[in-house]
Amino acid sequence: MIYFDSDYMAGAHPKVMERLLKTNHLQTVGYGSDDYTKHAAELIKDACGKPDARVYFLTGGTQTNATVIDGLLAKHQGVLAAESGHINVHEAGAIEASGHKILTLPQHEGKIWASELKEYIENFYNDDTYEHMVAPGMLYISFPTEYGTVYSYEELKEISDICNKYQIPLYIDGARLAYGLAAENGSVTLKDIAALADVFYIGGTKVGTLFGEAVVITNPTLLKNFFPLIKQHGALLAKGRLLGVQFEALFEDNLYEDIGLQVVNKAIRIREIFKSKGYKIAADSPTNQQFICLPNHIIDQLMPNVSFELWGPRGKEETTVRFVTGWTTTDQEIETLAEILDKL
Amino acid sequence: MIYFDSDYMAGAHPKVMERLLKTNHLQTVGYGSDDYTKHAAELIKDACGKPDARVYFLTGGTQTNATVIDGLLAKHQGVLAAESGHINVHEAGAIEASGHKILTLPQHEGKIWASELKEYIENFYNDDTYEHMVAPGMLYISFPTEYGTVYSYEELKEISDICNKYQIPLYIDGARLAYGLAAENGSVTLKDIAALADVFYIGGTKVGTLFGEAVVITNPTLLKNFFPLIKQHGALLAKGRLLGVQFEALFEDNLYEDIGLQVVNKAIRIREIFKSKGYKIAADSPTNQQFICLPNHIIDQLMPNVSFELWGPRGKEETTVRFVTGWTTTDQEIETLAEILDKL
Amino acid sequence: MIYFDSDYMAGAHPKVMERLLKTNHLQTVGYGSDDYTKHAAELIKDACGKPDARVYFLTGGTQTNATVIDGLLAKHQGVLAAESGHINVHEAGAIEASGHKILTLPQHEGKIWASELKEYIENFYNDDTYEHMVAPGMLYISFPTEYGTVYSYEELKEISDICNKYQIPLYIDGARLAYGLAAENGSVTLKDIAALADVFYIGGTKVGTLFGEAVVITNPTLLKNFFPLIKQHGALLAKGRLLGVQFEALFEDNLYEDIGLQVVNKAIRIREIFKSKGYKIAADSPTNQQFICLPNHIIDQLMPNVSFELWGPRGKEETTVRFVTGWTTTDQEIETLAEILDKL
Amino acid sequence: MIYFDSDYMAGAHPKVMERLLKTNHLQTVGYGSDDYTKHAAELIKDACGKPDARVYFLTGGTQTNATVIDGLLAKHQGVLAAESGHINVHEAGAIEASGHKILTLPQHEGKIWASELKEYIENFYNDDTYEHMVAPGMLYISFPTEYGTVYSYEELKEISDICNKYQIPLYIDGARLAYGLAAENGSVTLKDIAALADVFYIGGTKVGTLFGEAVVITNPTLLKNFFPLIKQHGALLAKGRLLGVQFEALFEDNLYEDIGLQVVNKAIRIREIFKSKGYKIAADSPTNQQFICLPNHIIDQLMPNVSFELWGPRGKEETTVRFVTGWTTTDQEIETLAEILDKL
Repeated sequence: MIYFDSDYMAGAHPKVMERLLKTNHLQTVGYGSDDYTKHAAELIKDACGKPDARVYFLTGGTQTNATVIDGLLAKHQGVLAAESGHINVHEAGAIEASGHKILTLPQHEGKIWASELKEYIENFYNDDTYEHMVAPGMLYISFPTEYGTVYSYEELKEISDICNKYQIPLYIDGARLAYGLAAENGSVTLKDIAALADVFYIGGTKVGTLFGEAVVITNPTLLKNFFPLIKQHGALLAKGRLLGVQFEALFEDNLYEDIGLQVVNKAIRIREIFKSKGYKIAADSPTNQQFICLPNHIIDQLMPNVSFELWGPRGKEETTVRFVTGWTTTDQEIETLAEILDKL
Repeated sequence: MIYFDSDYMAGAHPKVMERLLKTNHLQTVGYGSDDYTKHAAELIKDACGKPDARVYFLTGGTQTNATVIDGLLAKHQGVLAAESGHINVHEAGAIEASGHKILTLPQHEGKIWASELKEYIENFYNDDTYEHMVAPGMLYISFPTEYGTVYSYEELKEISDICNKYQIPLYIDGARLAYGLAAENGSVTLKDIAALADVFYIGGTKVGTLFGEAVVITNPTLLKNFFPLIKQHGALLAKGRLLGVQFEALFEDNLYEDIGLQVVNKAIRIREIFKSKGYKIAADSPTNQQFICLPNHIIDQLMPNVSFELWGPRGKEETTVRFVTGWTTTDQEIETLAEILDKL
Repeated sequence: MIYFDSDYMAGAHPKVMERLLKTNHLQTVGYGSDDYTKHAAELIKDACGKPDARVYFLTGGTQTNATVIDGLLAKHQGVLAAESGHINVHEAGAIEASGHKILTLPQHEGKIWASELKEYIENFYNDDTYEHMVAPGMLYISFPTEYGTVYSYEELKEISDICNKYQIPLYIDGARLAYGLAAENGSVTLKDIAALADVFYIGGTKVGTLFGEAVVITNPTLLKNFFPLIKQHGALLAKGRLLGVQFEALFEDNLYEDIGLQVVNKAIRIREIFKSKGYKIAADSPTNQQFICLPNHIIDQLMPNVSFELWGPRGKEETTVRFVTGWTTTDQEIETLAEILDKL
Repeated sequence: MIYFDSDYMAGAHPKVMERLLKTNHLQTVGYGSDDYTKHAAELIKDACGKPDARVYFLTGGTQTNATVIDGLLAKHQGVLAAESGHINVHEAGAIEASGHKILTLPQHEGKIWASELKEYIENFYNDDTYEHMVAPGMLYISFPTEYGTVYSYEELKEISDICNKYQIPLYIDGARLAYGLAAENGSVTLKDIAALADVFYIGGTKVGTLFGEAVVITNPTLLKNFFPLIKQHGALLAKGRLLGVQFEALFEDNLYEDIGLQVVNKAIRIREIFKSKGYKIAADSPTNQQFICLPNHIIDQLMPNVSFELWGPRGKEETTVRFVTGWTTTDQEIETLAEILDKL
């Protein structure tokens, strides 16, 4: 069986695992006060070009989103997000559980439009009853989005400008950030993200760590009491250095960037294989998630040997499926996929 | 330097780490639906003598407490706990953040008294204004307690009986459960815990895993929708099998029990060393945390070579300190400590 | 100036005020345990044909919605509602503040469709990832809706059947219930509402009281600990009898029904006046809120003498406006409006 | 029967009721934007000597406490209060329901000591683990306290100074403020309260209104978005002018002050009657709540003709009871009480 279900099916990248092994017996203080964690934070600040940023390490994506958003919002505020945003769909109400409404914007292949963001905010303040409504207190976007798409630099800049104008922090969910930075024809760098976002996180779980997300706070006025909030959200890892050690591995020797590039290249190769065989590409994704529209009989023939996800419910004749590559995906697996398709 | 600060300063026990390594490249589904996790749950149910229990794996203790307690309480209820209970002191308000009051009982070396529990509940319902007050909806105790003490079987049974009488679930925080089960002169087994508690958790973080706590639900009427609540609390690990794999290691070949016994024995040995040299034992702990009252000049002389925690603020002439053993503690380290003390 | 802005611009109906005056100096116990409140509850249960219902009196609509919904939902559940539902738009995030997501359904002139409700629930449970999403735990509808429309008996029955099938309580917001029951060509009675809803409230604030909403719980398994929840939500009135006294006035001698009929008749008369003069009716409302599309120059000419609300932002040439009648609206005021329009 | 149970058993003071009647048919905008409410706010600011204060009107005490405290605290903070504070005992967990812990201080006849407040805060920041604990974010005190006692000016000043030093807002619950200001041998004026507190509320419910509490925000940096928070807490009265009209009545012609003085004088008279007959005074209260320790047989003899509350459970031979006076209490009722006691 070859697996293209998701990018979090295996453990850690060998270089990450090696460091965990090497440091396993060392004794350090807990909760992220150790030197590994401090060093990892320095490496990240360097990579971001933000020497004054603050960096915190949490365990998972939903946890990170819930903690950051809870910290950024005042009690009467909600968070703007695309209807398809992860926080709005697949986090089991974690944002609302901390007391805040998600204010939805239309999604366009997973992205929001700056124009619709602006319109939402302006309509809100033009409404005489706005004090009876939930105020837009921040913006959440994901990069890449839940549909594998990415914003161009210009799009991000325009969004960021609107956020600045209305003094609404911009928070970027970077669960798959490495794949967004390595996007085919992409124009956004890590330094761009750090310059445009007020807060963002660099996802580790889907890019080679066992677990772990690095929150980068570039706007010094925000999240001033983030540590107790991490604890309050049950998001403080006792053996905090495990996060530091893993992110050290990712941010030394360009490993994070390298994984991003390799994994995206493999996904593009898969898309081209399907395309060359005449299958319909369901959404034009430049990152490590590819959406293909396959006839149901093809799906049935693939399933015994190839593992992948149906994207939405089965259609009558054809169904959209998702192929995801990860750091474990090998060229050999992709060739095997191509051969299987050849034989159908 | 030899370390006795806490039992979560190093990584994972070699047998745990070995399994993580061995399974690192395997591809499995996420969120705990994999076979390793299922197998670990079976091992735990066997060890508990509770074939019908449900077992869930979370990452850390505060997270586990917050998620379980949130799931057990109705909106108008609070959780009874000792004043010194971890949830009341060192969880940054995680329980209140999910909307619930902690109703405190007096603590006696970290333990509550069954008589005072009963009195609290009866006084509550005897008060004409009780519907204006927070109803006691469950009981939280820790085993061993935050002060290293343990309940006897009889004490636990009495507490459990009161909980049953008033239909208040009993939840046991087992962050250091292995050390409570291995307590000097202890009378409580894992099967006892499983028989008396409605819900409890078996701590991994402090007993040899990188992280991880196993929630055991023995009362089938409780926490029926626990999975989405785990997700909502940001407590669902994407690579869930990491928890299963680690707990498989702990619950095969008696590793959990073995670690418990060895670590407690080492702590008792430390206590005896201090006692034999005439130092005052501050609290009579039968588990892996030992509290000794040391003259300040002795503390100052130890510090360059021995790492341990001051317990509370420095006194004028003497100060209570805490020595904790863990799976990393060696006989050699204890002998070194003894030698250092000899030379003072 | 004549006022058609809303139905809560004046104090209480004379019969309500008279009773408040008459009982003003009496001394009774607080918090709704007095005989007036008990009697009012009996009157309401009679009117509903539900001798076993439980009735509670709260102060305002948002408060009532927040308290009831918080009480009905489990922690992992959200409330289904029309996008245009009051709880989703104009309650400043009160539902989310108690930890719950609002799951929105499309609105059709303020109403939801049974078919779309069914589809939502079925799609939810057909989604493999549903445990990562917020479960639909109840349905909120308003009767009449925020746009003045009402459900027919058949529509309500169909919705209620779906709720029963999926064991999701149906809660009806009756802020303007009297006007829905008196709707032009309406087919729904108070007994129907009581038979079909699990919980609903009978609005007083907009139907002749100073303030006050009566929550009727017809499903005996629900909201078993509602009293402490009312207190927790800050919704328990110290001088609770004020609510009982006012609802006694409404439910003796058919006052509630009478107000409903008179007020709706006046609103229909206003609609017919506008229609007869050739103005466009913006939405076909059978209740006490009428929406008319007026040329801007007509609006400008009316404003010095007639008070009403713009409904949404000003259009370029014409704008939708809202005319609302209440128990204070007199035939004379309506004739004056007709005369003013005649002269334009 | 003569009643001394509480100060909220009757409706409104005649002067308040008269105004409600007089304005009953007027049409005004809702939610507190009307001129009555604005005028009442001006009267209150004048009485407080705080022209720049902001004043908001809410319906009840628990509601007011929950809304203000939720607005003042950051997510990681809790509120300091006496163990006996109303928010800690009799508000059904309203503070915790909005996510915040109550951090308790010892109570001394209902009051906290400045020295213990200082000690709490200093110990907190001296604890190395303070970021794992709930930070003290504000102080709640009641004036008078739940036991009828009052702080002297010096005591309040000392408490206020500590709050300022540690930048912790001081919030005063003035449910019975009028009786605290009129306290026997009292030294605190309304202007003092306004000068020392950052936020406080002037209770109406227990001092002559049907309902209503006026929140006064004297520190301009606090509660900047209080209006939407009031709405979110379900605390925004639709017919907001009812609050304005009632507080106009209280703050014109010194009615608030007059009620305070008269009611306290009557309570003192009751205390003196009991004292003169040799009964034991249980607590030395200078306000409108009096606590007397009566033999059980005396209680039994009084009960057929006099209504009052047992304070705590019945003792074996004697029991503490509470006598409360209100604006309805007459000299005649007190003489009747004296006569009944004479005959026992």
